[in-house]
Amino acid sequence: MPDTDMPVQPLVERAPVAPPGFYRVRLDVEYDGTDFVGWQTQASRHGRTVQHTLEAAVERVTGSGVRIVGAGRTDAGVHATGQVAHFDTQWPHPLEVLQRALNAVLPPDVGVVGLTETQPVFHARYDALEREYVYTVLNRPLRAPLRARIAWHVPGSLDVEAMQAACAVFLGRYDFRAFGRPMRERGSTVRTVTAVTALTHADEVMITVRADAFLRHMVRRMTFALVEVGRGRLSPSDVASIVASADPSQLRGIAPPQGLCLVRVIY
Amino acid sequence: MPDTDMPVQPLVERAPVAPPGFYRVRLDVEYDGTDFVGWQTQASRHGRTVQHTLEAAVERVTGSGVRIVGAGRTDAGVHATGQVAHFDTQWPHPLEVLQRALNAVLPPDVGVVGLTETQPVFHARYDALEREYVYTVLNRPLRAPLRARIAWHVPGSLDVEAMQAACAVFLGRYDFRAFGRPMRERGSTVRTVTAVTALTHADEVMITVRADAFLRHMVRRMTFALVEVGRGRLSPSDVASIVASADPSQLRGIAPPQGLCLVRVIY
Repeated sequence: MPDTDMPVQPLVERAPVAPPGFYRVRLDVEYDGTDFVGWQTQASRHGRTVQHTLEAAVERVTGSGVRIVGAGRTDAGVHATGQVAHFDTQWPHPLEVLQRALNAVLPPDVGVVGLTETQPVFHARYDALEREYVYTVLNRPLRAPLRARIAWHVPGSLDVEAMQAACAVFLGRYDFRAFGRPMRERGSTVRTVTAVTALTHADEVMITVRADAFLRHMVRRMTFALVEVGRGRLSPSDVASIVASADPSQLRGIAPPQGLCLVRVIY
Repeated sequence: MPDTDMPVQPLVERAPVAPPGFYRVRLDVEYDGTDFVGWQTQASRHGRTVQHTLEAAVERVTGSGVRIVGAGRTDAGVHATGQVAHFDTQWPHPLEVLQRALNAVLPPDVGVVGLTETQPVFHARYDALEREYVYTVLNRPLRAPLRARIAWHVPGSLDVEAMQAACAVFLGRYDFRAFGRPMRERGSTVRTVTAVTALTHADEVMITVRADAFLRHMVRRMTFALVEVGRGRLSPSDVASIVASADPSQLRGIAPPQGLCLVRVIY
């Protein structure tokens, strides 16, 4: 319970604690985003969400309604191997039993890979220090049907060294408005990017991006810019100019969602 | 055209040559088998087949009907990265153009990765010396939704060394009736297995099997036996006894289709 001497409203908004009789649980989740409209349930959006699928599973197993808060609000078609979420429960048995029961009732495209009790003030979204995403570009002349759901097929040759040089342009604290919209209206567009790499593995180029938080579409727009560099259509310094412009119209394009995966949330 | 001095009937049955005005094309195909009832179109079976999907694409692009013959008749849910097929065509343009057009009209779960003119007597099925399949076992406590379509999840620990020892049992020319039915009724059940390995890659055990040809379900039944060895429920010598028994009732089980992939056909 929040201390009544403290200003209650901001605390409730930012990180409400588990109510009396409940304890807070951290949920580590993996999902194939193909058949979801995204992580988050929104009044304005119809379709299957990961959040609602998990809430329905928890309600079915525990018998009581629940609200699940995720660290990263992934878009339609975007995957996760390392999504983190939290919820409050009165579940009286070991959490291994709850985890097994959840995996038994969840559809095959969502799996609970971890379930642990946390501090009652832990907040999956607000306490996250960094998020790490990996974008997979399939770079060979011919498409690969077995990887159609998890990679963006770019058939022409890519100059991965130039892409690596362009990665460095993103490192640091900048206004990334040219690369995406804030999640909340009129929210800040300043983000701190702490790591960006482009590495070749066989016929794939894996782009890894880590930041304190991301704007909507930010990793997919960054990936698109890096692929344009790989194709020789943009130079690393063009990308630096786009960042500096803070103007979304400077970059016309976005990488498709299926190549993107939330791999880690760092607390 | 077959030489008229030769016995025509067996030749036509085994490997008809490309008719006059046509030339023969070798097709290298990759597919995600999840949404197919299998490779081969059969009067007795309803549903989407890879063969029919390819035939429809060739007909749509070239404007004439075609029959496509594949090397390996994969089952429902089984994938391929190295399926080989052949067909006869009068296509008057470069084959790169046909390949590009086919990939443009094919659904995302099938791709033509190679298209080359062959000898008019080449037969994708009868000329194949060996087929190689890889079966992927996901071996970790928790399932992985992003690999649900391409691996069999076996949560308990596996003794991969014992599995490797059991692999050797299959090597050689045997009656494999205990492991599958022949494709044709009353066909031979003798096959020559030339390579079997079980290797660990991170949280996966990859079982590779190569043979001159396979019985129906043979790789999946072999995989099931190897996993039973890994679980400690069968010993390598039990597997040898099952092979020797030539009795299908000695092994009660089969690995699910989604872990299996036809990776190579050797001519």
